[in-house]
Amino acid sequence: MMSDVCVFAPVSPAAERLRYILGEDDDMPNPTLFTEMDTLQQDGDELEWKESARWVKFEEKVEDGGERWSKPHVSTLSLHSLFELRTCLQTGTVVLDLEGYSLPQIVDEIIERQIDEGMLSPDLREKISFVLLRKHRHQTKKPIHRSLADMGKASGGGARHAHSRSMNDIADTLSTDQLRNKFMKKIPRDAEASNVLVGEVDFLDKPFVAFVRLAQATTLGGLTEVPVPTRFLFILLGPTGKAKSYNQIGRAIATLMVDDLFSDVAYKARDREDLIAGIDEFLDEVIVLPPGEWDPKIRIEPPKKVPTADKRLEKSVHSLNELGQPNGTAGGSGGHSEDEEMFCGGLFLDMKRKLPWFPSDFYEGFHIQSISAVLFIYLGCITNAITFGGLLGDATDNYQGVMESFLGTALSGTVFCMFSGQPLIILSSTGPILIFEKLLFEFSKNNGIDYMELRLWIGIHSCIQCFLLVATDASYIIKYMTRFTEEGFSSLISFIFISDAIKKMVSHTQYYPINTDFKPDYVTAYKCECLPLRSPSPYSSTSKTVSYSLPSYLDWSQLSKKECVKYGGSLVGNTCKYVPDLALMSFILFFGTYSMTVSLKKFKFSRYFPTKLRKLISDFSIFMAIMTFVGLDRLIGLKTPKLIVPTEFKPTRPDRGWIVLPFGKNPWWVYLASFVPALLVTILIFMDQQISAVIVNRKENKLRKGCGYHLDLFWVGVLMAVCSFLGLPWYVAATVISIAHIDSLKMESESSAPGEQPQFLGVREQRLTGILVFVLTGVSIFLAPVLQFIPMPVLYGVFLYMGVASLSGIQFWERIKLYMMPSKYQPDFPFLRHVPLRRVHLFTLVQIICLAVLWVLKSTVLAILFPVMILGLLVVRKMLDMVFSQHDLAWIDDILPGKDKKKDKKKKGDKDDTKKKDKKKGRADDSKDKVRNVKIYCHQLAGLEQKKPC
Amino acid sequence: MMSDVCVFAPVSPAAERLRYILGEDDDMPNPTLFTEMDTLQQDGDELEWKESARWVKFEEKVEDGGERWSKPHVSTLSLHSLFELRTCLQTGTVVLDLEGYSLPQIVDEIIERQIDEGMLSPDLREKISFVLLRKHRHQTKKPIHRSLADMGKASGGGARHAHSRSMNDIADTLSTDQLRNKFMKKIPRDAEASNVLVGEVDFLDKPFVAFVRLAQATTLGGLTEVPVPTRFLFILLGPTGKAKSYNQIGRAIATLMVDDLFSDVAYKARDREDLIAGIDEFLDEVIVLPPGEWDPKIRIEPPKKVPTADKRLEKSVHSLNELGQPNGTAGGSGGHSEDEEMFCGGLFLDMKRKLPWFPSDFYEGFHIQSISAVLFIYLGCITNAITFGGLLGDATDNYQGVMESFLGTALSGTVFCMFSGQPLIILSSTGPILIFEKLLFEFSKNNGIDYMELRLWIGIHSCIQCFLLVATDASYIIKYMTRFTEEGFSSLISFIFISDAIKKMVSHTQYYPINTDFKPDYVTAYKCECLPLRSPSPYSSTSKTVSYSLPSYLDWSQLSKKECVKYGGSLVGNTCKYVPDLALMSFILFFGTYSMTVSLKKFKFSRYFPTKLRKLISDFSIFMAIMTFVGLDRLIGLKTPKLIVPTEFKPTRPDRGWIVLPFGKNPWWVYLASFVPALLVTILIFMDQQISAVIVNRKENKLRKGCGYHLDLFWVGVLMAVCSFLGLPWYVAATVISIAHIDSLKMESESSAPGEQPQFLGVREQRLTGILVFVLTGVSIFLAPVLQFIPMPVLYGVFLYMGVASLSGIQFWERIKLYMMPSKYQPDFPFLRHVPLRRVHLFTLVQIICLAVLWVLKSTVLAILFPVMILGLLVVRKMLDMVFSQHDLAWIDDILPGKDKKKDKKKKGDKDDTKKKDKKKGRADDSKDKVRNVKIYCHQLAGLEQKKPC
Repeated sequence: MMSDVCVFAPVSPAAERLRYILGEDDDMPNPTLFTEMDTLQQDGDELEWKESARWVKFEEKVEDGGERWSKPHVSTLSLHSLFELRTCLQTGTVVLDLEGYSLPQIVDEIIERQIDEGMLSPDLREKISFVLLRKHRHQTKKPIHRSLADMGKASGGGARHAHSRSMNDIADTLSTDQLRNKFMKKIPRDAEASNVLVGEVDFLDKPFVAFVRLAQATTLGGLTEVPVPTRFLFILLGPTGKAKSYNQIGRAIATLMVDDLFSDVAYKARDREDLIAGIDEFLDEVIVLPPGEWDPKIRIEPPKKVPTADKRLEKSVHSLNELGQPNGTAGGSGGHSEDEEMFCGGLFLDMKRKLPWFPSDFYEGFHIQSISAVLFIYLGCITNAITFGGLLGDATDNYQGVMESFLGTALSGTVFCMFSGQPLIILSSTGPILIFEKLLFEFSKNNGIDYMELRLWIGIHSCIQCFLLVATDASYIIKYMTRFTEEGFSSLISFIFISDAIKKMVSHTQYYPINTDFKPDYVTAYKCECLPLRSPSPYSSTSKTVSYSLPSYLDWSQLSKKECVKYGGSLVGNTCKYVPDLALMSFILFFGTYSMTVSLKKFKFSRYFPTKLRKLISDFSIFMAIMTFVGLDRLIGLKTPKLIVPTEFKPTRPDRGWIVLPFGKNPWWVYLASFVPALLVTILIFMDQQISAVIVNRKENKLRKGCGYHLDLFWVGVLMAVCSFLGLPWYVAATVISIAHIDSLKMESESSAPGEQPQFLGVREQRLTGILVFVLTGVSIFLAPVLQFIPMPVLYGVFLYMGVASLSGIQFWERIKLYMMPSKYQPDFPFLRHVPLRRVHLFTLVQIICLAVLWVLKSTVLAILFPVMILGLLVVRKMLDMVFSQHDLAWIDDILPGKDKKKDKKKKGDKDDTKKKDKKKGRADDSKDKVRNVKIYCHQLAGLEQKKPC
Repeated sequence: MMSDVCVFAPVSPAAERLRYILGEDDDMPNPTLFTEMDTLQQDGDELEWKESARWVKFEEKVEDGGERWSKPHVSTLSLHSLFELRTCLQTGTVVLDLEGYSLPQIVDEIIERQIDEGMLSPDLREKISFVLLRKHRHQTKKPIHRSLADMGKASGGGARHAHSRSMNDIADTLSTDQLRNKFMKKIPRDAEASNVLVGEVDFLDKPFVAFVRLAQATTLGGLTEVPVPTRFLFILLGPTGKAKSYNQIGRAIATLMVDDLFSDVAYKARDREDLIAGIDEFLDEVIVLPPGEWDPKIRIEPPKKVPTADKRLEKSVHSLNELGQPNGTAGGSGGHSEDEEMFCGGLFLDMKRKLPWFPSDFYEGFHIQSISAVLFIYLGCITNAITFGGLLGDATDNYQGVMESFLGTALSGTVFCMFSGQPLIILSSTGPILIFEKLLFEFSKNNGIDYMELRLWIGIHSCIQCFLLVATDASYIIKYMTRFTEEGFSSLISFIFISDAIKKMVSHTQYYPINTDFKPDYVTAYKCECLPLRSPSPYSSTSKTVSYSLPSYLDWSQLSKKECVKYGGSLVGNTCKYVPDLALMSFILFFGTYSMTVSLKKFKFSRYFPTKLRKLISDFSIFMAIMTFVGLDRLIGLKTPKLIVPTEFKPTRPDRGWIVLPFGKNPWWVYLASFVPALLVTILIFMDQQISAVIVNRKENKLRKGCGYHLDLFWVGVLMAVCSFLGLPWYVAATVISIAHIDSLKMESESSAPGEQPQFLGVREQRLTGILVFVLTGVSIFLAPVLQFIPMPVLYGVFLYMGVASLSGIQFWERIKLYMMPSKYQPDFPFLRHVPLRRVHLFTLVQIICLAVLWVLKSTVLAILFPVMILGLLVVRKMLDMVFSQHDLAWIDDILPGKDKKKDKKKKGDKDDTKKKDKKKGRADDSKDKVRNVKIYCHQLAGLEQKKPC
């Protein structure tokens, strides 16, 4: 009990008692209790027990007339019923550890005791026994189709046919209805039942109450809906006229029985007083809603999270963090201290950490979700490969083209996913590299240096530099990458994704201009003719200005647009520069794919169809959207631009081979001088790679298998060299696709008790999906016949979705939204409870400005300095330490490693100490709680410190 | 208190006491209480009282570090704090009706009493007085823009600047901060304040508790955040170390003070015991949440509806309806028995009822919402007028065309909205009438009868028949139109709307076919040329087959498509039958308008921007969507089909005048025989009109001004005759547009206390919007220059929206959705709690089948029998009485009037009796409650009976 302010009633002995019994032996947890409440009802002439509610964790009620289970809801009790229950237990019969094997025997036993104690007149023995042994009718859930089939039969208006009847209560065997009950899968295997029987009878003038605990859980025939052995039995029979009260008392004991702590008391109680003490403790913890502010008729939906018995210990006195924890610690989930170790130094430590997981990295990939993930990421990857391949081809005069892009993506991706420290990362070409290649090619061309050889040497240098960074454990820099940097970077990349998708679409519109002057009636006035240039006679067979040899007789009117231009003809007419329908169709495909994906993703949260089907639809939303719009495109049959993959395995440029030789074409000093541009590439790769890895390894993703920054970098270095030798593009972690990869592999708990919310469990960490994606990319050359049906606008729609999806869930984005919300509508974010709004806004503003600056720089040729700008972000973040208090930063951002010392003084307790504490013993023990709270806070602070390298 | 089951504690005297004091005089309601809780805090060296929470109805807390108000939430209390508060009031000082004029004087008075009673040592007098007179610092809410401006200044990390400081507590005047406080508008004018002061001090060793009620509410300087006089004061000072406990006790008393019933007790209490009794009663009513099923850290959002003091009376023992009421009664809102009188017989009664509202029918129209409603409905009306005008023109060889349609719509609509019984109804042409006209015209043509004259006579007969129906009060038939019929009809009309919109779009695609074979590269191959037919020489000037006189020299290549056909040329080429872009653009406009309207409508429920702005956006969503897509259309500049209204005021067909003469063209017997088709028209009009009126007058719409079925029909009859004389189309109530009209005029309460949900108040019932819509329709002829920018696909998008919107909110539609939901995800509809799911499904299935049959019939020529089919629906509904129990029907449908007698026997109580009952007196009085519940049930049943005509 809490300390009393106004010298209230003396401290109850409840706490003392509970501390004693719960402390006895904590070796084995008690079984989960399934509680069923049956009420006595008149069915025609017969009395019977009808199931009226059940509890696994939350209450499910049989609707009055609906013959259906209500949704699981929080049991709202009246205080009165709890007090009445307390009195009932004080005055009624309490039998603990009764040796019972059948219901008749147990009932006899109870009645005998009551008669012995003079509480019951012996002549009522038969009557009570008769009532208690009436048969039980359970509410069984029927599938809808069967209910529909029932309709015809049940049309007479009778409403009783839907019940299953357990024929005889005295039967010891389980009925088929019990065994067939699908509800069983919601109940843990070792569960035991507690049965609550309440009813009014006409022969009693005072209530007959009994609470029984059996020595062994026993199956008592058709007593319980499911084949679960009964451990507890609560019986309340009373005089007529108070059925509602009896019901409330029944609900009260049922709710108590499913309470973690009370059920523990019930299992361990030595006598009646222990039970009463349990109720008193329960009462001390209940949450009270004022009657004027809440309508008791509203059924309260189960909360997302329920305090565990553990947490309930901490509720009293003062708790430092009201809801959630500062971001400085684990954020969502407590106790994941291992995950927070962002790296443990050195390549070998990385390998040591990853190796034990290696087998599971494969067998854990076998899951239906992996298929959708592979399809999704595969489409993203080939779109990326084609886009970048095309751009690289333009930039390097086809020294690296779409073919090289495909091959490089496949090779690098497969190797990386197979051996890296974080196989969830997806490698891809990135913008900065593209710009670097472009500049390098122009430089080589202008200075007569062989591009491929120079590039090879840069690759070799860069690889060596990467190894140096690995060897010196330079990845430690990531400890300065807080939420500020992470979010800035990933938002920027997302924006680039979104703007690229839109830019592509706009360029489509320009490529297929719409003739807005077209008047349907004047269709006769529109044409485009190919006329020979400079040649007065239209059918002259030769043209002096054209270098191509023209066919002897050229029918100009039969030439296509391209041919016409090729042969030097001139296109004359008002439709020449227009292409009908394609621009608008592309827009429809683009926007349609995007919106359909978004809608289907959201479908998971709708009420329609069973959960599994919805989850499937949600998982395959992108696939379904692509299929739909590919279908639509086929149906309409317009010549929209399609995905064209190379079909022949040969370098894009015929004058280059598959191997680049290191010597021979450039002077010797070039081999050394390439060290300098290599340095730029190394920084670029290092920053791009590591920050993407930080984002992937975010604690919110609850990764179990740890990270491997050094190992990742090592492989990126190796691949740099290999790709340089093969003349393939360079690859580095792609933030947005990696996030999409993770999102498509998220696991949620299959909720067990009805009403329990599914919890985010983590990510399906494995190497299989990644490997498959890249192997598929590699064999895409053979998939061309299938892939050619996919219109590019559909793929840009997927890009748009990826960009938008990776923005959601970023706190930065949520904070931007706050600008537009009046404060009273703002969501209840933990940081808003603790940091003044204008400080939050200021922090967001700084981020927006940083992003805007980066965006502008990124659009110029300075883009190759992009990685350096990320370093700039780190500096800005460091400066924020001067503007914001550490308290505020701990909530909005994370605390920089250097600042730990300041908080050190608060760290008094020992975290291990806290964990080992006996849960339930401490509950009744208030004096310790304050100390505990302090310790827990320290434990959280300790979490902060684990960020520093070990 | 409820009856006790297990001989629990003796019945407390609380109930008795409360009954006595609350029963004393119930003449005037007590003022609303605003409660503010201040806690004692150390600010540097100084002590001060800092506002930590406030209550108008729900709790708003000052966030720990956020310096912001939390969202209003339900106060969750611990049981412990309530018991501690009880003890505090038992042991502390309670001063009732103190003559106080300033805080120092009041404080002196309290301290003096405590010293007199020996509860306080005299040497603490100064210290306590010092503490209690420290200044109060309130949490004042700042607008965001000011907070942003603060950012620069406050960047030093200090977080204290946002507070306003009331300079001196002893000051009697109100500070400007208090007067300027915007929160004041959330508090009723006559409100009084109760101030709760809690804090820990180091000089006390036992708590100092005082509860003061002032004889007169007095403004005590800067004590309260808002300039509201203080009536109650609760002070709790205690030894250090228990601040959390004191806080909880403070929250408990504050929550009690805003409880309707306890505040009543507080105002009327004669002594300490009365207050304690008030707490006991409160405790008896509280709702208890088990600690294991709810996390106390979750802030509970205020419920949509809170039980009134009245309702709380009814909670105990048994209540027949758990949530909501059967549909047989008022549905949503109780106590609207007047609205349920669907008609009161006879034309004159209608007029008598409507006349007093006539002035308000105009001045109540002046509201911003009316503008959006007018624009919305206007666009719907002219689209309808053009669509039907075009179709009628086709059907009647332009005897009635678009011009007649506009004129008729304007004339009929204006007259009807001006004089009818239900001015919210919008008149329009409907499908059945169109089909009738078509058949009639064909008949006339084939039999050599003058169509216009025949039509005039049918109109005259029909008008007379309508008058007969009015005179005989035939509208009584509507009492058989239950939810079943209403929903069937309105769903059908909605489906027709939706399918018409989509059909129109599909026909667009056919009208503007897409050339799917177009290859951009072969643009040179596409052309369409006009070549002269049958004429070997291409430039011959005459053509024998064409009746038009051809120009002497015709340049065929210069002719447009239409001209080419006109002059008998032949169109040769592969693009002749295609129109680029228009089909796709139309689709984009159509779907864009629809989706944007839907999204903007939903925007009302988003978190962004202040409520008023959101409401504005939501109200004008259709207008904004139309503007956006008109703009987009203009921007792209394609020749999409536009809205073309006639610009000259003359009959569409030049050979008819504006007046149709009744005699001269047809033989005499036609005048008499037209009685027969007139009968069909009358039934058609009568059913269409009355069922639309029933839908508009639905009780869910909470109309205040009553209905006027007879008056409506009277005017429809008059307009029939007038339109027939003028040769204009006939008009009847249009269901979908009328529903849209009502939807756009819905009013919601401006919520008062923070956290209270806005309630649907009713519809802005007036004649102004309707009249404006039709006057605008009339002058549309002059608006042609503006209207010609609106593409038709945009208007079809509006049509689609209207159809879909009128489906939502229909219970039938909700029930259809149930088919696709697993029962555990189904919403908690009241009828689902009371009617077995398979019965609900069966009922829905019957409705679906009826609808399907109607749909099929409607698509054939049998459509003119449509009104008879509605009669068929009534028969089906009547037969359902045999399949479903009256209980089930009362929940899913309504009960047919004939069935009332069966329930008559249950009607024992007198409804007036129930209303006059003293609310609070009864509360503590349990024995009466059962009787009351029975009476309330009877009252509900009585509501049913009022459906029969009076």
